[in-house]
Amino acid sequence: MTGGVGAHEALTVTGLLAEIAEIGRDPVRGGYSRHVFDDGDRALREWFTARATGLGLDVVPDADGNLWAWWGTPGPDSVVTGSHLDSVPGGGAYDGPLGVASALAAVARLKARGHTPTRPLAVVVFAEEEGSRFGVACLGSGLLTGAVDPDQARGLRDAAGTPLAEVWAANGLDPQRLGPDEQALGRIGCFVELHVEQGVDLVHRGVPVALATAILAHGRWCVRAVGQGNHAGATPMDARHDPVVVAAKSVLAAREAALARPGARATVGRVSVVPGGTNVIASVAETYLDVRAADDETVRAVVAGITDVVRAAAEAEGCTVEVVEESFAPAVVFDAGLRDRLAAVLGGPPAIPTGAGHDAGVLAAHVPTAMLFVRNPTGISHAPEESAAAEDCERGVDALVRVLEELV
Amino acid sequence: MTGGVGAHEALTVTGLLAEIAEIGRDPVRGGYSRHVFDDGDRALREWFTARATGLGLDVVPDADGNLWAWWGTPGPDSVVTGSHLDSVPGGGAYDGPLGVASALAAVARLKARGHTPTRPLAVVVFAEEEGSRFGVACLGSGLLTGAVDPDQARGLRDAAGTPLAEVWAANGLDPQRLGPDEQALGRIGCFVELHVEQGVDLVHRGVPVALATAILAHGRWCVRAVGQGNHAGATPMDARHDPVVVAAKSVLAAREAALARPGARATVGRVSVVPGGTNVIASVAETYLDVRAADDETVRAVVAGITDVVRAAAEAEGCTVEVVEESFAPAVVFDAGLRDRLAAVLGGPPAIPTGAGHDAGVLAAHVPTAMLFVRNPTGISHAPEESAAAEDCERGVDALVRVLEELV
Repeated sequence: MTGGVGAHEALTVTGLLAEIAEIGRDPVRGGYSRHVFDDGDRALREWFTARATGLGLDVVPDADGNLWAWWGTPGPDSVVTGSHLDSVPGGGAYDGPLGVASALAAVARLKARGHTPTRPLAVVVFAEEEGSRFGVACLGSGLLTGAVDPDQARGLRDAAGTPLAEVWAANGLDPQRLGPDEQALGRIGCFVELHVEQGVDLVHRGVPVALATAILAHGRWCVRAVGQGNHAGATPMDARHDPVVVAAKSVLAAREAALARPGARATVGRVSVVPGGTNVIASVAETYLDVRAADDETVRAVVAGITDVVRAAAEAEGCTVEVVEESFAPAVVFDAGLRDRLAAVLGGPPAIPTGAGHDAGVLAAHVPTAMLFVRNPTGISHAPEESAAAEDCERGVDALVRVLEELV
Repeated sequence: MTGGVGAHEALTVTGLLAEIAEIGRDPVRGGYSRHVFDDGDRALREWFTARATGLGLDVVPDADGNLWAWWGTPGPDSVVTGSHLDSVPGGGAYDGPLGVASALAAVARLKARGHTPTRPLAVVVFAEEEGSRFGVACLGSGLLTGAVDPDQARGLRDAAGTPLAEVWAANGLDPQRLGPDEQALGRIGCFVELHVEQGVDLVHRGVPVALATAILAHGRWCVRAVGQGNHAGATPMDARHDPVVVAAKSVLAAREAALARPGARATVGRVSVVPGGTNVIASVAETYLDVRAADDETVRAVVAGITDVVRAAAEAEGCTVEVVEESFAPAVVFDAGLRDRLAAVLGGPPAIPTGAGHDAGVLAAHVPTAMLFVRNPTGISHAPEESAAAEDCERGVDALVRVLEELV
């Protein structure tokens, strides 16, 4: 037991992150591409299972692809912490893994101190938070809570055309059991997610850790323009039905519609042009819209503005266009009671909103939920430049330890 | 011999095209994706070799990836006809293969009639005319004639990162021998390429076959904008350096710059966004420009206009941008003497210019060259809707037979 305690003390958050620093690197984009049940994600799941088991936790996968590591017998009023291990394509090292590694380090610290929980505690790893493989963000937490329809999820396919159900089955999960898990959800007394900040608020404040107040409303849409494929050299300009022109206008319309509404954000970061030859006028062009704002109505208004522009652009170009909603997550306001309680324990850190979506936002509709943010010196996220100082990561673990001591 | 003649007579152009109708289909884009030395292209090369050998021709590959099928001993003042078998991604059935199949059918017809050539005749298949695998159009004819630098060609990589030299070696060709072949070029007395029309000129004229007068000047450029990858939700609109905005402006600038110059054409049919996640502001966005006009200066002026716009857009966005020339082919005017001679044989068909590039355009800088166009009822090319009526295909072979009888 003494040896075990020593080993637990040695588990630092930066040490844990160093252990996975070579897993799932993206040699083309830079940073990491770790998508649910790809080689990197599977390696990270094995690493988490080994590390959690080493801490004496019982690791149990659920049917939705999430991993639960239990300290104590799973039961009602549990305290759950954790985050996700997947990344966007070419993402950073901290978005997700920092929360998982901090949770493991905090449990190690509590165990080393001989803390005896009064309630069950679980470290959770949610599947496919970024939606980078199957296009639906917060897939694992969304399935668990019923926010994502299991039939819809079973029908999802990745870019290679592989159905989600096939990927689940290949990884030992029964795709027929996908979906809301009332028993698992009913056990959660509260959920706390630690996450790297995705902005420079804490840099400006000169503070390493903050609590979250709210998450922006957030939706994704696909703008699909269909024209007439043709020869780029032989087709006069006035005989074209070029969907790439409609796609280009959607990008500029998104910028304009967001700028017109303070605090709103609209992005096109993914574009698909078919067939995609330099000397070919495309037949189909898709732009994927990511739109966020403080309230649901503003998000809808931004999308309506973009839709008006692309409809007019398609008509002018002799193309057709449809704007298809892929997901919509209403604005989230985190539980004020829990936040006040944690703020008191942490000595009143700043409380700030975030523009990024999180599994915590999905859970917040069901159980008291809080978030801790750790300062990011670059302010950059979803890119290799995403960063957190080792010292700030340790301050994050300090805060999470105090929070868990208070809660369990 | 009698049996042989009967077999030759049975080789019709539509029959030949039917034989390859299932090779290299693209199940995603529709139509065909046949790129140099991929599975489809290799199957087409085998088919060509078998068919040409069956006609009694000697098939000889050259170091540049082209195939030559000789009737008679290769020597000076040869008459060469043919085209290419590769396609754009998701291309049609006729662009390229119609010229090759018509050449085989014409040889079969001449053999069946007992025609005895007075000069060597070759049917040629040029490699990678579309530039869809390695990005350089008319690669095979360009290497043969020296228009494409062999060192540059050896350094080319396909989308999977495989070097051209490796692909060549894997297909039994010595990449060190790539490049100009003065002996092969010196043998060509004249070159005639039959091709499906890539427009509706012959539909409007109500005529099945035409001769070519000229090919537009044509270049390809890559507009590469580099910004700062970041989180689509957490990054305020005024803190962005989004290269996709620059890319969108390049698309609209191309449209505008071409419309401002009568007869000019500018297209963006290929877009690459890195990393390409919906919830990620991109770090790099590339648009590929295809620009054509009746003269070289107009092409340069269109590109200069686009460059001005993207430079200003990049500066406004806090991005960098470069516009890199990938290829430039000056305007081609086909040999008037050869065209007049063929026009007399063919009873004065229409003579029309084309906006599409062809191996014939590359050859025209070195030897007297002519083109025959076959009517395309849709006018569409580089797309599955590309078409030619069976009867018109036969009229094309009739014309090619008359041309070859005149020349050999």
